[in-house]
Amino acid sequence: MRIDIITIHPQLLESPFQHSILKRSIEKGIVEVNLINLRDYSTQKQKQVDDYAFGGGAGMVMTIEPIANCINDLKSKNNYDEIIYTTPDGETLNQKHCNHFSTLNNIIILCGHYKGVDERVREHFITKEISIGDYVLSGGELAAAVLCDGIIRLIPGVLNDETSALSDSFQDDLLAPPVYSRPAEYNNWKVPEILLSGHSANIDKWRFEKSLERTQQRRPDLFDKYKSGH
Amino acid sequence: MRIDIITIHPQLLESPFQHSILKRSIEKGIVEVNLINLRDYSTQKQKQVDDYAFGGGAGMVMTIEPIANCINDLKSKNNYDEIIYTTPDGETLNQKHCNHFSTLNNIIILCGHYKGVDERVREHFITKEISIGDYVLSGGELAAAVLCDGIIRLIPGVLNDETSALSDSFQDDLLAPPVYSRPAEYNNWKVPEILLSGHSANIDKWRFEKSLERTQQRRPDLFDKYKSGH
Repeated sequence: MRIDIITIHPQLLESPFQHSILKRSIEKGIVEVNLINLRDYSTQKQKQVDDYAFGGGAGMVMTIEPIANCINDLKSKNNYDEIIYTTPDGETLNQKHCNHFSTLNNIIILCGHYKGVDERVREHFITKEISIGDYVLSGGELAAAVLCDGIIRLIPGVLNDETSALSDSFQDDLLAPPVYSRPAEYNNWKVPEILLSGHSANIDKWRFEKSLERTQQRRPDLFDKYKSGH
Repeated sequence: MRIDIITIHPQLLESPFQHSILKRSIEKGIVEVNLINLRDYSTQKQKQVDDYAFGGGAGMVMTIEPIANCINDLKSKNNYDEIIYTTPDGETLNQKHCNHFSTLNNIIILCGHYKGVDERVREHFITKEISIGDYVLSGGELAAAVLCDGIIRLIPGVLNDETSALSDSFQDDLLAPPVYSRPAEYNNWKVPEILLSGHSANIDKWRFEKSLERTQQRRPDLFDKYKSGH
């Protein structure tokens, strides 16, 4: 998979891709991530990529020209399955999006900044608008990193133990059950006895019940979705 | 504000805090962010911080001892308003959380990894569990970075133009209206004429209508919330 990230802060994104699972997936050749500096596509002397909003008001707008130049250049070299714009008013990212995106070959992620990009970019170049949640960030870079992480970990060969991803929260519309590790007693706080019993059928049953209970308590919306599907 | 981030990948988080708004807020002394390596609190020879889950199954668990050692050490030196754990089964982060957290003095953010932390950590140390969205990441580090960004940009003095944050999406349960910048015509795609009219009352009215329209189309859930509050 090839992911081209268009950003005004390519260096901001360096360390997340140089550690942990993202680093390993790049080293293994499973994914290629390119950090593309939008300023390289500015035709202005000072490499400007923003300007005032028509109609006035606070906050700058990312202008159409450098973005159009950049995306047209990339599209002349590769075919893209999706050109994604990270924006708080996009579709709210969920695990199903991550599962789907992880099956694609080439994607572009455009990181927004300031008050966002000129609307004409969204109308004519972007194929998918994604929000990572109902909050505003100082830029789309961390949203792009989150999106990459959520996608890349699902590509076969990235996680060491693939069964691990299948039991994650959200894959079956249920939250994961509580987990415990050694020591069995710490500061008088004990691990539930059933987990020490060695009786795997009972343990599976306990975990499933805890998943149901936790989802019902914490996320009644997810629980309704789960019930309607079963 | 002081933010102590407990992580097994402190270096993963370096570049996001060295650029853009996060960098400036740290340089201005408005916020102090400490990346604390959890392995420094492991009492094991190989600085291990994870172990198998009691009851079996795929995926490792972050053990209680290093985390308890670390949090107890930090609490012996500072008073914390919240000890936050980033986890997919926490409360879903929204703009109201960000507004609230931005008013606090000292917080800890514990980054989860693997199948998560031993449940006893959550029961006895954590005061708030936060999910940045309904998807799973390879670790809590990017979630912590997102949380910091969402919080820090709201602290007075961080954004250059404070009125800018007030017109963001979500601050009033409405999505932001479309924005446009120069040129007024690009590739035959034109900016809406009203934005070039100079008539600010009409422009404000147009923007408000577009906000309503966009929210109703894209996020009927938010629109219902908006209507019930007005």
